[in-house]
Amino acid sequence: MPRFALQVEYDGAPFAGWQAQADQPSVQGAIETALARLDPAFATRRIAAAGRTDAGVHATGQVAHADLDRDWDPFRLSEALNWHLKPAPVAILRAARVPDDFHARFSAVERRYLFRLVARRAPLTHGRGQVWQVLNPLDVDAMRAGAAHLIGHHDFTTFRSSICQAKSPLKSLDEIRIEVADIPQGYEYRFHLRARSFLHNQVRSIVGTLERVGAGSWAPERVGQALAARDRAACGPVCPPHGLYLTGVGYPCDPFDGPIGR
Amino acid sequence: MPRFALQVEYDGAPFAGWQAQADQPSVQGAIETALARLDPAFATRRIAAAGRTDAGVHATGQVAHADLDRDWDPFRLSEALNWHLKPAPVAILRAARVPDDFHARFSAVERRYLFRLVARRAPLTHGRGQVWQVLNPLDVDAMRAGAAHLIGHHDFTTFRSSICQAKSPLKSLDEIRIEVADIPQGYEYRFHLRARSFLHNQVRSIVGTLERVGAGSWAPERVGQALAARDRAACGPVCPPHGLYLTGVGYPCDPFDGPIGR
Repeated sequence: MPRFALQVEYDGAPFAGWQAQADQPSVQGAIETALARLDPAFATRRIAAAGRTDAGVHATGQVAHADLDRDWDPFRLSEALNWHLKPAPVAILRAARVPDDFHARFSAVERRYLFRLVARRAPLTHGRGQVWQVLNPLDVDAMRAGAAHLIGHHDFTTFRSSICQAKSPLKSLDEIRIEVADIPQGYEYRFHLRARSFLHNQVRSIVGTLERVGAGSWAPERVGQALAARDRAACGPVCPPHGLYLTGVGYPCDPFDGPIGR
Repeated sequence: MPRFALQVEYDGAPFAGWQAQADQPSVQGAIETALARLDPAFATRRIAAAGRTDAGVHATGQVAHADLDRDWDPFRLSEALNWHLKPAPVAILRAARVPDDFHARFSAVERRYLFRLVARRAPLTHGRGQVWQVLNPLDVDAMRAGAAHLIGHHDFTTFRSSICQAKSPLKSLDEIRIEVADIPQGYEYRFHLRARSFLHNQVRSIVGTLERVGAGSWAPERVGQALAARDRAACGPVCPPHGLYLTGVGYPCDPFDGPIGR
């Protein structure tokens, strides 16, 4: 049965998250419903994704895989799925034929997330639900100094949800890069995080903590102390989901870069 | 009576345009209603704006002025207006006390517009209603060559709406700058236009014509021929309003840069 990788973009606002749930709209459910229009066997088949994003979290580079009965041309598959996905804010950016041993989740060796935080007094008129807003400008140098404590291989117990199901709290965080851009009468801070994998709520726990540093409530060193405490209670506030985007997933061999993919 | 300048941002989607109209939601009407909550005399008073944007057109730097009975602190005025504007997607970014002879429209010496055009196959999931989407990439060098024909002082009859009320079709177009940015599996083209003033539908007529050049349907020289024709029928298709933003207005003396403004 031919296996396909799908690069997926979505607005998380109307969904209870990636994962299919009874009686709740999910991104997985939307894509599986569209797949079932192309391949009736999909009424009982599931797809798997690299990151099971929470309710309200967005993606521009989620990757999922699906097994189909027919050997679709990948471009036609993405076009047909986008047709059936309308009007849900979910789009298949690319499809590619992949080997049977490719698994969107278990083959992944890197996840990249973006968190968008806007600081200004006036309410937002565009992009509501797409960024987290605070009222006052943040000290980006202090946030970078705080973030530096988190890079590397650590026990991230402080920065994971109490309902996280990962077996171990040990993770390697490869990068936290913080960009600043001017917006009308304010600033946008873009946090780029990169790791092999993340714990549940890890990105939102880290950004929420760094915001406290940027606001001057926390000294940058306190981030290192919080990490060393290995205590969920030492974490700063977890920031809201609607500023978070899964922007990319890395594989040893890019599924969309093969001779068959488009 | 103290006069105030207001810098205004809005999402044009829910409005029938800037200008107040009976039985239709307008940005002007939303702000006047909020002003009336602060100053009952405003039930019969009007505000004036630099650019009377059409239905669906957005702004990040519209400027309006209002005469109030009370000598408000400008910062408190903007905060109070934003409170009363909720939940409409309209925000007062800044307020400033200005001289009585300041007029948002007649004192303006420059208007700046941005048009956002996205090219990609897959449907948009974020920013629907905030950009114009086409399916195929555009030739930006050809669009720049086409745009060069329009810079300077010209008779823009070809590029103005048949219902334009301006007395003369003669305008000086100071700049058309086209930026390109990568977006996931596509491109965003940002057209920046700058002039003392614009004719009705001039920006949308120009961008719609340049899109034809970028798509290869028009040679860049045809833009110059269309301009020289001084004939509305020679124009390319007028592009939709929802990619257009009024981003700024210039005055001989910046009303928001004075010692009283904030």
